Amino acid sequence: MPMKSVKHFTGDDILALPKAYRRTLVNSLNGYKSLCLCGTMNVEGTPNLSLFNSVIHVGANPPLMGLLIRPDVVPRHTLTNMEATGAFTLNHVHEGIYHQAHQASARYPGDVSEFEAVGLSPEYSRLRAPYVGEARVKIGLVVQERHRILANQTLFVVGRVEEVFVPGDALRPDGFLDPERAGSLAGAALDGYYQGKRLARLSYAKPDHDIREIDTDADLPDLTFL
Amino acid sequence: MPMKSVKHFTGDDILALPKAYRRTLVNSLNGYKSLCLCGTMNVEGTPNLSLFNSVIHVGANPPLMGLLIRPDVVPRHTLTNMEATGAFTLNHVHEGIYHQAHQASARYPGDVSEFEAVGLSPEYSRLRAPYVGEARVKIGLVVQERHRILANQTLFVVGRVEEVFVPGDALRPDGFLDPERAGSLAGAALDGYYQGKRLARLSYAKPDHDIREIDTDADLPDLTFL
Repeated sequence: MPMKSVKHFTGDDILALPKAYRRTLVNSLNGYKSLCLCGTMNVEGTPNLSLFNSVIHVGANPPLMGLLIRPDVVPRHTLTNMEATGAFTLNHVHEGIYHQAHQASARYPGDVSEFEAVGLSPEYSRLRAPYVGEARVKIGLVVQERHRILANQTLFVVGRVEEVFVPGDALRPDGFLDPERAGSLAGAALDGYYQGKRLARLSYAKPDHDIREIDTDADLPDLTFL
Repeated sequence: MPMKSVKHFTGDDILALPKAYRRTLVNSLNGYKSLCLCGTMNVEGTPNLSLFNSVIHVGANPPLMGLLIRPDVVPRHTLTNMEATGAFTLNHVHEGIYHQAHQASARYPGDVSEFEAVGLSPEYSRLRAPYVGEARVKIGLVVQERHRILANQTLFVVGRVEEVFVPGDALRPDGFLDPERAGSLAGAALDGYYQGKRLARLSYAKPDHDIREIDTDADLPDLTFL
């Protein structure tokens, strides 16, 4: 299978790599990633902010999202705060705030608000967790359950969506939130930031039907009623 | 907090939405997503292919990746096969195969190979799972552990990376696999396909240091030795 210009690594090759190279390579393997700033607060109300690239959809009814937390690495305070308040926010990173978002991944002491340190504004609504005022897509969640990954002691945390703010001009008539219109960014590995450019939306796939592009508003079922 | 042109939904609003709108909206909430075709085979050796947008990094040492599987929805056979063989592959979707990738999400009967149905080529190496011959980034994994999400009975499956194929010209000297150079796509919601355009790579963030862009090869530590 290997062709010219294809690099091949076995599992043993990966284990034998220098640590920095291995970390970068393995963090690259899932391609483009969701980029969200996670807002929490401690019991005294000090806001905390950290950057996550591991947020996934878990279910729509009830609305659930999950993310992986490394208790041994940067967002220590995130986990402590989530456990104390039961709440957290996820805020999409966009072009206007990605330098600040990246800076929020630095290891600040527990009594420092990353909001203040990086120059972003905590904003409050109904949850005991701060949103990022400068973000355009903001999601408030309560902690639903957590699972310990035995292989490396990381935690997969599932949150239930309690509140959503999205830009009206990025929300399509069928509920599709267009990340390109929202200006959201994608991440790669630990330090790559990418804009998206839409190729297409494709129709629902069925075994005996050809799929087609559904780019235009005319193709979308109009479920606007809000 | 709500401004003009901001749409606000509470958790109750979301539960009250029509099912199709809710599914699309909630699937949109994490922005850009990893897009991977997952290859498995059953005990008779029939290859199976399904599309996932929930693949995340779990750890670099040992190299681990995770994905969420909905046993009640499309990729039923994926889970059965993973349990039978203990292996699966993840293959990045690129512009040349995204129509086929989308079609692979249709509900084919268990005895149908999605490879054949959509026109992609199974390719074999050291694992009991097929790669997508047309993919440029291919990862082979063995099942490490699985966690049942109690809130909706989905499964978070963790795999250990046993083999990786990447295009040499997309692999940077420090181990960074550039998804733009690899032609990988990002997904949005359930049917959006996006190309990426790099804004920047940013230097490691520390509390007392300014971050800077590390776009050029000259900025990267050269760990090429393979």
